[in-house]
Amino acid sequence: MKAGILGGGQLGRMLLQEAANYTVETWVMEKDRDCPAAHLCHHFVQGDIRDYDAVYAFGQQVDVLTIEIENVNVEALERLEAEGKTIIPKPSALKTIKNKILQKQYYRHHSIPSPAFLVTQDKAELATKTDFLPAVHKLGMGGYDGRGVQLLKKAADIENGFDAPSVLEKMIDIDKEIAISVAIDKKGAHVIYPPVEMIFDPYLNLLDYQLCPADIQKTTLWKAEAIALAVARNFGSPGIFAIEMFIDRSGDVWVNETAPRVHNSGHHTIEAHYSSQFDMLWRIMLDYPLGNTALIMPSIMINILGAEGHKGNALYEGMNEVLAMENAYVHIYGKSQTAPGRKMGHVTILERDKTDLLRKAGKVKKALRVIS
Amino acid sequence: MKAGILGGGQLGRMLLQEAANYTVETWVMEKDRDCPAAHLCHHFVQGDIRDYDAVYAFGQQVDVLTIEIENVNVEALERLEAEGKTIIPKPSALKTIKNKILQKQYYRHHSIPSPAFLVTQDKAELATKTDFLPAVHKLGMGGYDGRGVQLLKKAADIENGFDAPSVLEKMIDIDKEIAISVAIDKKGAHVIYPPVEMIFDPYLNLLDYQLCPADIQKTTLWKAEAIALAVARNFGSPGIFAIEMFIDRSGDVWVNETAPRVHNSGHHTIEAHYSSQFDMLWRIMLDYPLGNTALIMPSIMINILGAEGHKGNALYEGMNEVLAMENAYVHIYGKSQTAPGRKMGHVTILERDKTDLLRKAGKVKKALRVIS
Repeated sequence: MKAGILGGGQLGRMLLQEAANYTVETWVMEKDRDCPAAHLCHHFVQGDIRDYDAVYAFGQQVDVLTIEIENVNVEALERLEAEGKTIIPKPSALKTIKNKILQKQYYRHHSIPSPAFLVTQDKAELATKTDFLPAVHKLGMGGYDGRGVQLLKKAADIENGFDAPSVLEKMIDIDKEIAISVAIDKKGAHVIYPPVEMIFDPYLNLLDYQLCPADIQKTTLWKAEAIALAVARNFGSPGIFAIEMFIDRSGDVWVNETAPRVHNSGHHTIEAHYSSQFDMLWRIMLDYPLGNTALIMPSIMINILGAEGHKGNALYEGMNEVLAMENAYVHIYGKSQTAPGRKMGHVTILERDKTDLLRKAGKVKKALRVIS
Repeated sequence: MKAGILGGGQLGRMLLQEAANYTVETWVMEKDRDCPAAHLCHHFVQGDIRDYDAVYAFGQQVDVLTIEIENVNVEALERLEAEGKTIIPKPSALKTIKNKILQKQYYRHHSIPSPAFLVTQDKAELATKTDFLPAVHKLGMGGYDGRGVQLLKKAADIENGFDAPSVLEKMIDIDKEIAISVAIDKKGAHVIYPPVEMIFDPYLNLLDYQLCPADIQKTTLWKAEAIALAVARNFGSPGIFAIEMFIDRSGDVWVNETAPRVHNSGHHTIEAHYSSQFDMLWRIMLDYPLGNTALIMPSIMINILGAEGHKGNALYEGMNEVLAMENAYVHIYGKSQTAPGRKMGHVTILERDKTDLLRKAGKVKKALRVIS
């Protein structure tokens, strides 16, 4: 089978590492010829994944297409789908998810608990909604990886809001943040991964670690699983869906966001689960049975971000210290250029005990630095 | 770091899948542009790995070189080593292992138990050694994967022997065949993988399954480990060494052959061990600490060979049946052409119980066929 991936970042790279287990001919499209995935596919096509003509031409060469980032030209995918190509996820799901306004309306339409919201068309309209604060302002289109999100605590913060169609979302009194991935095949069969728990740095407010399984009550888990399934299945689309959720202090579960693809919150599945999210997506694309989502061992995942104050050719400090730790798995994404906060790699640690996981994660975080 | 691999088969392919976890720029040389590893490296060089000039030119581009097959030009590697390149394994080890006569003499020199042998220069000399039969005749140079080995039971079989320098080796009354891999880093530190046991088909006499850990007595294990270590360490070379051994009916251990590289007997380590043989070789090449050889779970590995009577474009029957089995990992090598007995892929199964492993392996063997 011929399979194309729109986007050539680290998710594409890890997808291609797994693709080599199967009989699939791989295509990647990305603007940057030196992107993380470029050298691991059969055919690299230099092009803009947001461009209609480029995506349409790219898609015509393959049997099945997927994405590793939402920010692609959906109209071209719709045409390709109409012409018989298999797109995973379906363009309709992608369209809903890409636009945060449509995404929120989707949750409401399907009675999926998600924080209360208003739509604001511009800053002028936002200024009339100060009684809705404190809230989070999310740009409808084009936000990614923390960009396009503003916390608005009080009326004076309005100036930091977006002057374009956006969602204004009530703040939740968050106890925990978790994510659950759901895999759905072309026939509609599904499997569900155990939840991961995001552990934030109390000082820097950056996502630091991701623990699996999440340390939550069974009743909360059941709620979260039911909600994640409802989110994923109502799209009527095959694919992998990562559903990020808040758990509030009364144990209620609220959907924050959904990604219709392999996701940062599933990196640990490479080593810690029988079938990784990357393996799983190939199973879906190539019409194989779904894999086993069970965990082999509890795990913790640490994102490796470019160090503050360093921009330029990437150098990795502390690799030996980390690789000397038992069952620490390093994944460097092969980006030649580092920048503060840029995702340059991740480390997954396997251990039976949560305390050991946290202790080792702290050691990794101290040891490993990406400088220039 | 810039790393080159001589040979572009399945071992190279699996090495490259792991390489993408680290910061390494990869080169592959192989005659066939469509070989399993060609599309997974940064730089593919079409060339003959047995050719002095080709290997020398290839090696000059990289910092560290390794092999995925012994049949390479060692003289070019010697020159590259003399000029400061790091070759893993060292050309001296490769030279000894490549020639079965030198390999046997190496075992004798280091008092490593290996079946008694004679050297025969040609068929005429072989004909004078009939009182040494039953024995196995092994071609000194150029044998690979079952080629270059002849069983000579009685005088009449002499005609099947080799008319070139060869080893005539006494037959051992074999109870079991096992293999142990030893990894040695550049400073001489080593780690050792648990033994695998080869399980042969009683009818076809083909290697069918490979069980890990081998089902052997503790005292036999200690002997086998000590012998494997002696074999590997006396080369005075970093690298991965797969030592194949016979256990006879009185529990004695005899070295059959050694491979100074990642090896078929280590495929299961990808999923079943904390650090796979492929990960381990990168750790050695890139000067990282050695990994953890412990097993996560017992495993069985089944080679997928081209079916008898089928030659041509490869088709894989039964993939869905195998992938529907829990914790069955399929690796297809991406060879477009199948031929009877050709190694086309492998399947690894994880299970806690040996009986379950054998039962599932039997199911895989029945289900999966490579036809044309």
